[in-house]
Amino acid sequence: MVVLGVDTSLRSSGYGVLAVEGSRYRALDFGAIKNAPKLPVSACLKNVHAKIAELIALHRPDVLSIEGVIYGKNAGTMMVLGEARGAVICAAADADVPVYEYEPRRVKMAVCGNGLAEKIQVQRMVKTLLALEELPQNDAADALALAICHAHSNSLLSARAPL
Amino acid sequence: MVVLGVDTSLRSSGYGVLAVEGSRYRALDFGAIKNAPKLPVSACLKNVHAKIAELIALHRPDVLSIEGVIYGKNAGTMMVLGEARGAVICAAADADVPVYEYEPRRVKMAVCGNGLAEKIQVQRMVKTLLALEELPQNDAADALALAICHAHSNSLLSARAPL
Repeated sequence: MVVLGVDTSLRSSGYGVLAVEGSRYRALDFGAIKNAPKLPVSACLKNVHAKIAELIALHRPDVLSIEGVIYGKNAGTMMVLGEARGAVICAAADADVPVYEYEPRRVKMAVCGNGLAEKIQVQRMVKTLLALEELPQNDAADALALAICHAHSNSLLSARAPL
Repeated sequence: MVVLGVDTSLRSSGYGVLAVEGSRYRALDFGAIKNAPKLPVSACLKNVHAKIAELIALHRPDVLSIEGVIYGKNAGTMMVLGEARGAVICAAADADVPVYEYEPRRVKMAVCGNGLAEKIQVQRMVKTLLALEELPQNDAADALALAICHAHSNSLLSARAPL
């Protein structure tokens, strides 16, 4: 199974492609989709959509794993996040790839065994679990963690229905 | 000039295609993109994205006009609205169609001369301005009003920068 994890945001979405063979995980690709601070919103969304579509075409993931909603942010922030999610989910839906979402606490629990783990702990555990040579950058580590979380959940048959 | 107005939402996005020749406006097409209440979010977004892309391919609009953000709704509502906007903006950006947004009050002012006009007034004025045979359905009327608002703003050189 191949899982594409995406830590969605407008200016810096992390992505991580995970090959899952039983309990063995291997990172096929990871990084971040960067959009310059002054790039118009529509151009940012176009980039995010195109890059996710490209990753799907390249790696043919069986599933996309994205971060569940953290409520409580202000309405404007939520809308911008929603727009970025819309771009990502559209790319998946166009390619008939189901999308699952996992709350941040659950992702941290899956990777670090601690739902309140710090970002640096997630980076270190992702590095260790995937035997990466270097500490992955923040957004990429979160995306790989999302992919790992889905792989765990899937093997436990505890994944929720896709979006 | 051809303007595609879109009243964005997940379950029922209105659309209206307006041909503008000087001060003469003509409705080329209008309606709503309906998604059944139980359809998964990803399928809804796929439908919205595909239908807007189809309308763009068919009518080749010079510009898309969408509703500006109404803050103050709850965070969850804003995120779902954001996702639908992401689907619409991606379809426009993929086709290199610039997107402009107008606040509801400004749209009502442009169409009814009253920023606090009721929905039924908008429907009636859109019917009159475009010489439609019947009262347009709510979402379609809002979409046509968004297109009319852009046409007005454009002729007055008062449009804001695109998204």
